[in-house]
Amino acid sequence: MEKFAATGLAALLTTSMLAGLGGLAQAQEAKTPETLLVRGAAGDLTQAAGARRMGGDATADLRKAIIDGPARNVILLIGDGMGDSEITIARNYAEGAGGYFKGIDALPLTGQYTHYSLDEKTGKPDYVTDSAASGTGWASGVKTYNGAIGVDIKGEPHATLLELAKAAGLATGDVSTAELQDATPAVLVAHVTGRKCYGPKATSEKCPSNALENGGKGSITEQMLQTRPDVLLGGGAESFEETAKAGEWKDKTLRQQAEARGFTVVGDAEALQKVDAANQDKPLIGLFAPGNMPVRWSGPKASYHGNVDKEPVTCQPNAERAESVPTLAAMTQKAIDLLKTNDKGFFLQVEGASIDKQDHAANPCAQIGETVDLDEAVQKALDFARKDGNTLVIVTADHAHSSQIIPVDDKAPGLTEALTTKDGAVMAVSYGNSEGDSQEHTGAQLRIAAYGPGAANVVGLTDQTDLFYTIRDALQLKQANDAASAAKPAGTSG
Amino acid sequence: MEKFAATGLAALLTTSMLAGLGGLAQAQEAKTPETLLVRGAAGDLTQAAGARRMGGDATADLRKAIIDGPARNVILLIGDGMGDSEITIARNYAEGAGGYFKGIDALPLTGQYTHYSLDEKTGKPDYVTDSAASGTGWASGVKTYNGAIGVDIKGEPHATLLELAKAAGLATGDVSTAELQDATPAVLVAHVTGRKCYGPKATSEKCPSNALENGGKGSITEQMLQTRPDVLLGGGAESFEETAKAGEWKDKTLRQQAEARGFTVVGDAEALQKVDAANQDKPLIGLFAPGNMPVRWSGPKASYHGNVDKEPVTCQPNAERAESVPTLAAMTQKAIDLLKTNDKGFFLQVEGASIDKQDHAANPCAQIGETVDLDEAVQKALDFARKDGNTLVIVTADHAHSSQIIPVDDKAPGLTEALTTKDGAVMAVSYGNSEGDSQEHTGAQLRIAAYGPGAANVVGLTDQTDLFYTIRDALQLKQANDAASAAKPAGTSG
Repeated sequence: MEKFAATGLAALLTTSMLAGLGGLAQAQEAKTPETLLVRGAAGDLTQAAGARRMGGDATADLRKAIIDGPARNVILLIGDGMGDSEITIARNYAEGAGGYFKGIDALPLTGQYTHYSLDEKTGKPDYVTDSAASGTGWASGVKTYNGAIGVDIKGEPHATLLELAKAAGLATGDVSTAELQDATPAVLVAHVTGRKCYGPKATSEKCPSNALENGGKGSITEQMLQTRPDVLLGGGAESFEETAKAGEWKDKTLRQQAEARGFTVVGDAEALQKVDAANQDKPLIGLFAPGNMPVRWSGPKASYHGNVDKEPVTCQPNAERAESVPTLAAMTQKAIDLLKTNDKGFFLQVEGASIDKQDHAANPCAQIGETVDLDEAVQKALDFARKDGNTLVIVTADHAHSSQIIPVDDKAPGLTEALTTKDGAVMAVSYGNSEGDSQEHTGAQLRIAAYGPGAANVVGLTDQTDLFYTIRDALQLKQANDAASAAKPAGTSG
Repeated sequence: MEKFAATGLAALLTTSMLAGLGGLAQAQEAKTPETLLVRGAAGDLTQAAGARRMGGDATADLRKAIIDGPARNVILLIGDGMGDSEITIARNYAEGAGGYFKGIDALPLTGQYTHYSLDEKTGKPDYVTDSAASGTGWASGVKTYNGAIGVDIKGEPHATLLELAKAAGLATGDVSTAELQDATPAVLVAHVTGRKCYGPKATSEKCPSNALENGGKGSITEQMLQTRPDVLLGGGAESFEETAKAGEWKDKTLRQQAEARGFTVVGDAEALQKVDAANQDKPLIGLFAPGNMPVRWSGPKASYHGNVDKEPVTCQPNAERAESVPTLAAMTQKAIDLLKTNDKGFFLQVEGASIDKQDHAANPCAQIGETVDLDEAVQKALDFARKDGNTLVIVTADHAHSSQIIPVDDKAPGLTEALTTKDGAVMAVSYGNSEGDSQEHTGAQLRIAAYGPGAANVVGLTDQTDLFYTIRDALQLKQANDAASAAKPAGTSG
């Protein structure tokens, strides 16, 4: 708590400065300096000053929010495909246009970052990244080609933040609502030439140089077990039923291998809740779905002229999602509880994966529900960080996406839908960048936001690869020669 | 210069910290604390750290960039329709993906802001604003309906920043590449119920309550003359040829009225350059086009499957733009030079209007050229502010827009085009949110960035209406009852 020792006065000031505005119950909870920096509209939107989010001059509070590193812990939360458009769509729907997300919108320091990838052959920019190249950018600090996991355009591996943190004795966690082998979780724990190389079978075919039987380090799942984070939570159980083709665990399933190497493997929220320790002696794998985890909310897919030809939609809970499936917030809270016991600190990445997947699917309700799901996880991270006082929390995305808020009566050439928001007003959303079954990523720079020691490094214009160095330096991780340190990963084999 | 008195050491530190990176000539020019906060890629994009924009930990430099208000001067630069997608498209094309704009990208403090408007009847949010409601938000601090200029949803006027600044004795300027009667310049100088009420004729028909002959305050152009900023530069000469229908200047053209009221009226870059004073005795109007000013760059309009069916485009200077038309940078520099002579300081708004207009027209080259044009103007503002040490510079937009960067081979349902960028790579841009002749605005939150005293107030999540208060308070402007102070504008009649 030392870092926030001087904030008693700040909290008082903040509360008194806000007191005149009304409607700001959260001011009463102010414990940290950034309260004046983010909030919802003060009052009646139709009146002068009614839509203000600020209670006064924020200069002093912003100064207090700038805290020198190092940090003991870093929690990085990624909204896959969560561009500024996706954030605004979700906020408008779930909180109202003048409202705010208590997690995503509550980080005091903000900036924009670029996230282009590279063409594998020419080495020139590819202006629309995928999640693999993008994740490799922050996980290893190097630009690469779309599809690459933890390797550069020459196929050379580069050490990841999780590997470096583990080598320094920190606890590590990797949490996602996607399959654990999906690009964003995979970039921390594996180095393969193609993102589809989840298990031994696909690796033989698509990433032969990585296959164990060819002297490589194995599939994403096999490398994940070798890298051995303390906590792995997400979907992707299916790949664990594949059988190793070579090495010590040849002909055993990857699940058998995990158990033989000391992992605790759980499969539902109740079992997860009962886990009371996760460390290098007994790391934890939670596998809560065969593939990607089910989404939180459901609603119709957008359709041609859907915003003008159909009635506005109200989103519903996803009836197909079982209670036994933990939320991202529950996984995040559990990961924090397990990792925080390490005296040296921890590095945790959390991904809300299906903002992207539902944007691809042109499904606004599911996309919004996943953004809300991520916001709840960010709230858990911020709650911990505020109490801990020595944790850097960063929230960003890996690329922008297709959805746009358009005028309610606009006739668009793509797929559209109208939704009735929390304001009781109608919002129209368009997905108009692909004629195919899947909408495409887009190249717009992204919001990056942070809280805690070192958070100042996200302000202004940065690149995705800067994020690697921001986190590396916040945790004071040592980095030898990039390629070499990855080639000899610091993983403990169980 | 007092405000930056402590920065000699900062400049030294910054320069030395950057010295090891190479290729950063601008470090040599460092005069202000933010140098470490924004820059282009350090080196070979294919190498680890090669794409980094940061030279090290930015915490100390960010702290130095946070400067308490008040400010003597405020320069607000608006890129109309300049969402994060439009900024990235222009940067990729003109500077390369790892490059940066020396103006737009060089402001050290950044955030996001919301910009919804209101439904005139229900008072509920309209999630896609137009430039009139949007501009009224920052110009007067009140949310309003699309089309409203300086009035709330009841049609009541609210004092504008320019009116308040003038009442406080500051010099004022309003510069745009659009017609001066267009929404963004108009929101500072007029209060009418409909944005099309440029002159007496349209006002009679569309804004009868505002018409002079009905006891109103007149058309946008007539109110502009009454409000009497020191400097008005842009297009819109045509409306000045209309004739007043009532009042002191009945049956005279608005140009005759302007001259009779003491305005200097110029029509080309050479005449503008010769003007050596502009103040309340002799305010300046520059009218450089009958309507909107011509754009800087030209190229083909995007077309259906244009990115896959046609060769990538290289943008060209607009051959139809005469040398006699000043750039936005030239207008901005002249406005600063004229306004800075006022001892009490100045408020200047500068709009790059045709980013929006060319986004509507699905013309990537013209859109990019206008963004470059704005960047040059921002550079002029920053150059002045760095030397002056007492000027707040803010750069933002009024709403997001339609253009998206999509994968090069993506087949989209709307209009697309491929461009060959400064990187020598191909970038595909899509306009896919309207089947009509004009692409539509979008509702995504926007970047806002600032430099100088009070700049901290843009960080985090704010609303467009907060910007009114940020500027009002930075300039220590006094505000009586909103509606009343606007109803009795502080304009000096000439």
